[in-house]
Amino acid sequence: MTTSFPMNDGNSAYSYFNNSQRQKEIIDASKEMVREAIIGRLDVEVMLSSSKLFRIIELGCSIGPNTFHAMQHVVDVVKEKYNNINLEFQVFFSDHIDNDFNTLFRSLPMDRSYYASGVPGSFHGRLFPSRSIHFAHASTSIHWLSRVPKELLDEKSPSWNKGLIHYGTSNSEVVKAYVAQFEKDMEIFFNARAEEIVQGGIMVFISPFSSYIRLVEFFGSSLMDLVNEGKLDESLVDSFNLPMYFPSPQDMTKVVEKNGCFSIEKMELTHPKSKLVDDFDAKTFIINLRAVLEGLLINHFGSKIAEEVCERTLLKAEEISTWMKANGGKPCQLFVALKRK
Amino acid sequence: MTTSFPMNDGNSAYSYFNNSQRQKEIIDASKEMVREAIIGRLDVEVMLSSSKLFRIIELGCSIGPNTFHAMQHVVDVVKEKYNNINLEFQVFFSDHIDNDFNTLFRSLPMDRSYYASGVPGSFHGRLFPSRSIHFAHASTSIHWLSRVPKELLDEKSPSWNKGLIHYGTSNSEVVKAYVAQFEKDMEIFFNARAEEIVQGGIMVFISPFSSYIRLVEFFGSSLMDLVNEGKLDESLVDSFNLPMYFPSPQDMTKVVEKNGCFSIEKMELTHPKSKLVDDFDAKTFIINLRAVLEGLLINHFGSKIAEEVCERTLLKAEEISTWMKANGGKPCQLFVALKRK
Repeated sequence: MTTSFPMNDGNSAYSYFNNSQRQKEIIDASKEMVREAIIGRLDVEVMLSSSKLFRIIELGCSIGPNTFHAMQHVVDVVKEKYNNINLEFQVFFSDHIDNDFNTLFRSLPMDRSYYASGVPGSFHGRLFPSRSIHFAHASTSIHWLSRVPKELLDEKSPSWNKGLIHYGTSNSEVVKAYVAQFEKDMEIFFNARAEEIVQGGIMVFISPFSSYIRLVEFFGSSLMDLVNEGKLDESLVDSFNLPMYFPSPQDMTKVVEKNGCFSIEKMELTHPKSKLVDDFDAKTFIINLRAVLEGLLINHFGSKIAEEVCERTLLKAEEISTWMKANGGKPCQLFVALKRK
Repeated sequence: MTTSFPMNDGNSAYSYFNNSQRQKEIIDASKEMVREAIIGRLDVEVMLSSSKLFRIIELGCSIGPNTFHAMQHVVDVVKEKYNNINLEFQVFFSDHIDNDFNTLFRSLPMDRSYYASGVPGSFHGRLFPSRSIHFAHASTSIHWLSRVPKELLDEKSPSWNKGLIHYGTSNSEVVKAYVAQFEKDMEIFFNARAEEIVQGGIMVFISPFSSYIRLVEFFGSSLMDLVNEGKLDESLVDSFNLPMYFPSPQDMTKVVEKNGCFSIEKMELTHPKSKLVDDFDAKTFIINLRAVLEGLLINHFGSKIAEEVCERTLLKAEEISTWMKANGGKPCQLFVALKRK
């Protein structure tokens, strides 16, 4: 069964809505590449025969506000390219059924230049009618797996992920299990999108890369601190793993080629300038990640432990800053532009 | 400014979700007429040239579950008529921006045979791209006005609605103000739908008629009881009016003809068999109406008075039963099928 891992909902102190500055940087950093993909690769005249309606989907929209920036950017660039055609735009904001769509809808910009629509459901499956989509956008979302690879929880398996919550410092068998799950999920993902996207349609992925793996581990070490202090049973940590895999360009090439319906128009690992890193604002990074992970932590450990883990990780801000400096201070991200053959 | 009057949200005791049996009866009673409109009036082959995608909108979907029955019925009948064509269906559930879409999405039937989408916004305005809709459905929704006619609140106006909350027993000037607002709203409504619905597309309205006017008054009389007991200031009742007008066939003909883009294919005032009336279950009627009106009452009077008014109206169940019997026991409803010229 597909499970769902919504960001912190609503509009409160640790909500994703108020704590997604890092994700906004990722979107901003890719704006120029999205622009190039549209200006250089999109042929609206071929795609839209009689109708003048351009349909865009956001896969993993969460609750905003970043998704509004991203969608308006796509609309603006398409308009700029086809300023001689009187296009209409329809944007479908999609995320899991338990995403907080109420918050998303209530913060829709009044001055948007598109018809807005919300689509509940997993992108590991069909969401839209056949050949109805011209542009698909997925930012900091395709790294979410449909489930935790089950071998990680099996004591007898070489992929048992004892004492860890992700694959950053795990053995290679654990990494393999994550990769296998990612490939399985992306096969379903690409099969669905291949049906939904018109010929010539563009899909872009913007995905965090290696730096996130390390950041996530700081939460894991906070959990282990609690274990070492006797406040948490280790078996609870052993049975908790994050359902996310940050694909490399090689991973991406493999899944695209396996599906066969899309051509890779551009793939780039970038080190975008991050204001947060310039300031060494590790705290913002951690709080952003908290807004993403807290729901998962609460589900598994209860809200008391979840809060303590988040607070303790915040206390590691200095350590995280140091690590960031040592690692060039520049998080990586992967940009991919694909075209439906 | 357009204001919004959402039904009671969530899934609790007095939520619309759990208290809309009467509205379901209204939908059930019109199923055969919706069927006739599709079988007799719809020509999919003309509307859908190359694409095989049939798009349906629900205007005023609220939070379910009735809307799911209604939409599946439309899909089933279109499929039955065109069983030789491999159609895909996309349903857009639309309601005000502060409708509880989270509850709606979380209760979407798993076995639905359409792609589901939510569209936030007022139907007194554009919601969808031009010529993109094949079937529009509005059940117990077009009677909602975009605002209370402002004359009702003006002591110096002949339309001042002193001591009353609706137009059931008001003077003819009050009724005129309601009619004028309805006509203004429907002009905007029809202008929007005329753009959105393809040529040959069908729109159906299912609207409660006269019986509701009387039922609503029982809430008004409960408010006046509180005034007479010195528990509520009369000016608060004077300044409260319900933003709803239940159109007659004559009202409907007038607004359709004024717009000029739709032909009336069928218009019928019906007295559908109601299980609730057979049982004289006035309580269910009142609780259904409470799920609709409570938000408005809370906004104006605060939650304490709102609750007392609802509870007091429940105590009038016997009186309401008697009135129902005396009036043939059969509430009226208006069914309209229109076709985009």
